[in-house]
Amino acid sequence: MKHLLSAKDLGHDETVMVLDTAEAMAATQKHAVKKLPTLRGKTVVNLFFEDSTRTRLSFEAAAKRLSADVINFSAKGSSLSKGESLKDTAQTIMAMGADAVVVRHSASGAAHLLAHAGWINVPVLNAGDGTHQHPTQSLLDAMTLRRWYAPGGPASGAGRAADGSPAPRGRDLDGARVIIVGDVLHSRVARSNVDMLTHLGASVTLVAPPTLLPVGMEDWPCEVSYDFDDAIASVEPDAVMMLRVQRERMSAAGGGFFPSPAEYSRAYGLDALRRAAMPEHAIVMHPGPMNRGLEITAEAADDPRSRIIEQVGNGVSVRMAALYLLLADEGNQL
Amino acid sequence: MKHLLSAKDLGHDETVMVLDTAEAMAATQKHAVKKLPTLRGKTVVNLFFEDSTRTRLSFEAAAKRLSADVINFSAKGSSLSKGESLKDTAQTIMAMGADAVVVRHSASGAAHLLAHAGWINVPVLNAGDGTHQHPTQSLLDAMTLRRWYAPGGPASGAGRAADGSPAPRGRDLDGARVIIVGDVLHSRVARSNVDMLTHLGASVTLVAPPTLLPVGMEDWPCEVSYDFDDAIASVEPDAVMMLRVQRERMSAAGGGFFPSPAEYSRAYGLDALRRAAMPEHAIVMHPGPMNRGLEITAEAADDPRSRIIEQVGNGVSVRMAALYLLLADEGNQL
Amino acid sequence: MKHLLSAKDLGHDETVMVLDTAEAMAATQKHAVKKLPTLRGKTVVNLFFEDSTRTRLSFEAAAKRLSADVINFSAKGSSLSKGESLKDTAQTIMAMGADAVVVRHSASGAAHLLAHAGWINVPVLNAGDGTHQHPTQSLLDAMTLRRWYAPGGPASGAGRAADGSPAPRGRDLDGARVIIVGDVLHSRVARSNVDMLTHLGASVTLVAPPTLLPVGMEDWPCEVSYDFDDAIASVEPDAVMMLRVQRERMSAAGGGFFPSPAEYSRAYGLDALRRAAMPEHAIVMHPGPMNRGLEITAEAADDPRSRIIEQVGNGVSVRMAALYLLLADEGNQL
Repeated sequence: MKHLLSAKDLGHDETVMVLDTAEAMAATQKHAVKKLPTLRGKTVVNLFFEDSTRTRLSFEAAAKRLSADVINFSAKGSSLSKGESLKDTAQTIMAMGADAVVVRHSASGAAHLLAHAGWINVPVLNAGDGTHQHPTQSLLDAMTLRRWYAPGGPASGAGRAADGSPAPRGRDLDGARVIIVGDVLHSRVARSNVDMLTHLGASVTLVAPPTLLPVGMEDWPCEVSYDFDDAIASVEPDAVMMLRVQRERMSAAGGGFFPSPAEYSRAYGLDALRRAAMPEHAIVMHPGPMNRGLEITAEAADDPRSRIIEQVGNGVSVRMAALYLLLADEGNQL
Repeated sequence: MKHLLSAKDLGHDETVMVLDTAEAMAATQKHAVKKLPTLRGKTVVNLFFEDSTRTRLSFEAAAKRLSADVINFSAKGSSLSKGESLKDTAQTIMAMGADAVVVRHSASGAAHLLAHAGWINVPVLNAGDGTHQHPTQSLLDAMTLRRWYAPGGPASGAGRAADGSPAPRGRDLDGARVIIVGDVLHSRVARSNVDMLTHLGASVTLVAPPTLLPVGMEDWPCEVSYDFDDAIASVEPDAVMMLRVQRERMSAAGGGFFPSPAEYSRAYGLDALRRAAMPEHAIVMHPGPMNRGLEITAEAADDPRSRIIEQVGNGVSVRMAALYLLLADEGNQL
Repeated sequence: MKHLLSAKDLGHDETVMVLDTAEAMAATQKHAVKKLPTLRGKTVVNLFFEDSTRTRLSFEAAAKRLSADVINFSAKGSSLSKGESLKDTAQTIMAMGADAVVVRHSASGAAHLLAHAGWINVPVLNAGDGTHQHPTQSLLDAMTLRRWYAPGGPASGAGRAADGSPAPRGRDLDGARVIIVGDVLHSRVARSNVDMLTHLGASVTLVAPPTLLPVGMEDWPCEVSYDFDDAIASVEPDAVMMLRVQRERMSAAGGGFFPSPAEYSRAYGLDALRRAAMPEHAIVMHPGPMNRGLEITAEAADDPRSRIIEQVGNGVSVRMAALYLLLADEGNQL
């Protein structure tokens, strides 16, 4: 593989290989000198057409740990609708000597276009395109899950959970049960995770109000539920992943087509009661940044089984792995 | 000491040790290759909740001279009032692998909260919190003073002044007389300097209009005066430090509770006449950026004994010293 | 030479030397590890008083390839009209340890002032000052032309064109014929190129509507025409350089003093027909970013003889050359 565009493109074996590499990267970060010389002399360009401080900084930290130079190209104000402007920008970046381009864009398909339009001959890493894909997010989620879920344990309950230590090489998520809750309609995180987690053998249940689910979900390899409590009871999840919700997608008054924030929290928020209804070993995940009090209460966010902070650290490790596999001189390894 | 939060926390001996280290850092900056390998592989995060180009660039330059990687996290728009947002931001930064956090925030106490709330287990350096503290500013002021003031000289006059060469190890400011002039009410610079300079043995006189002085100053270890000319005559200062004044804190019309800009300049501005009234050896200081024509005239700013530019360079040296002492692998030395 | 302020300052021999160095730099960029240790430990400050993402990133990439540290000082909001504020900013940057300052300013003459006012004792590189000069732009244009134009070939036609391989040492542009088209009035690119290309032996024809030409052009060492088609026919150019046009300098209605965008494109835009009227060997240039559909059609921009992308790459090479020649320890070589 030359690019990292979609969780869909990564099959079972490739995903496991990236995750194994990410564990190796994570191990190096415990050394006194965390910097690896691997990508010295390479230039990674962060091409962000929309703001995302956390994702940009995570890629920046990952690239710098590998000794690459990072150039931030904030392209806000540009628009994919002027198709050629993306082309000109891409070619300009290439001509300046980029060895990889990390792209974030509000239009679904932008990363794919950038990689395959013939403008660029270096790896493209998708850092989120519209409501489409965010593959490094699903990689970090899979890495986190893989540390806390050991396949082959008892069918349910605490025995199925590992201890959070680095996952052994080759582990997948065979048999894991994951619930993803929230605004699936607008979420590239949900989409990427359905693709990736099912490739790894997990079963996924999406929970959302009907108005926040996309049409055409028949093809998605997952279950769908409108009732969070019901899903917890019937799925007995190993992990519950809360999606970030945009307040502006709620109705002010409530009671209508879209829920109000209070209605949303009541029906789809994760609180201590719902946490208690989950199996004890189940972990709590969130891509961040959280709206505490909306999709998750402070109590649930700070639960001992919450892995939300660990997810951030794993984000740097999977991005190091992706950059390494796509860029290191030994040739493309992904 | 694990953090650098307040000039108050630094006693006489610790302050002298930091300043000695800063002189050592300054000496390395005269070499052809200014870069030291000391912090190679470490990541310093600049977490700035309010803009301050100069302070941020000074910390960035200091960290890069020590070979650290720098990640700038501009968090404008966030607010400490949502207490948990600072927590989540802090934990995110930690999880990304920060080895130190430099924080600037409009709320007094933010740096202390960040260091002691249990969210973070790396050194926190306060780059200014509200009207509270700005310890590296007072360190650079002390470093500048220490180069130009030699304790034990004659009781007053030119003999007391040194020649601006690097201060010998162990020197403090015993007997130095410093006047700080301006908007003390809103100034973390004044507060930090009162703490630090008195720890070093200097006596400090604050000069300000009554409406720009805080209440509860009885506890401050310094004199207060409303009359700049009178203070110059009675104190015979070794240094006069002008504070930056915000035009928006003046009244437009003047003659009332707050002075107008013209009234302020007349009563509290440093001009050539007041410079001439000071002892010849006295130096002129300003934390920058200056409002030339408001709190200081161009003539006074460019006076041969003005140390305003030297202060900027010393700022990089004290920040190198602080990062080194808090971060270098030999273990925490501060 | 201590600074790089104006194409005018660079004579024939100096320009050729910089271009030879740029070719050497370009050659190093084909290695697996593109980073040269030349400027390790040096700090290059990008002092940008107006936005220019491309120019800033090009200087940043050039400095990082030479292992310098880069500090970006975005000084938007400052203004040269407060003369002393530029002085204070300059002195602050110097005191922080800058080894070179790359400056971009909306006021003509700002770079010259910065270099010669006595505030700064390190090299100043002009990255564009008002409508005055943009010397690295003209260097990259000359580098591009020099690769595609071989002096001493047949008097006209394809024989005169080289093959785009690196120019041999010492080559100049003797006899080359260049047309520059567009808003000459506001263009530092046109001004810099007239100076530099004529120094190298080329003849330049400027084409613009009368309202977009400056007064006092009698002194300029070039021809002027109001008619693009006529210029193509009579000059038989080796290169046509299109200038970027600001839409806000067009009239909405057209038919008056200033052309409308449609009128402008019709009279002064480069399209396939005009490309076909040019000698086959002639190359198409543009400083970017292009307004496709205004001053150049997509067809002309993507013509096989368009060198617009190559110009961007050459921009990094000439900036590496300029930084190297002004900064490398062996002493000033420019």
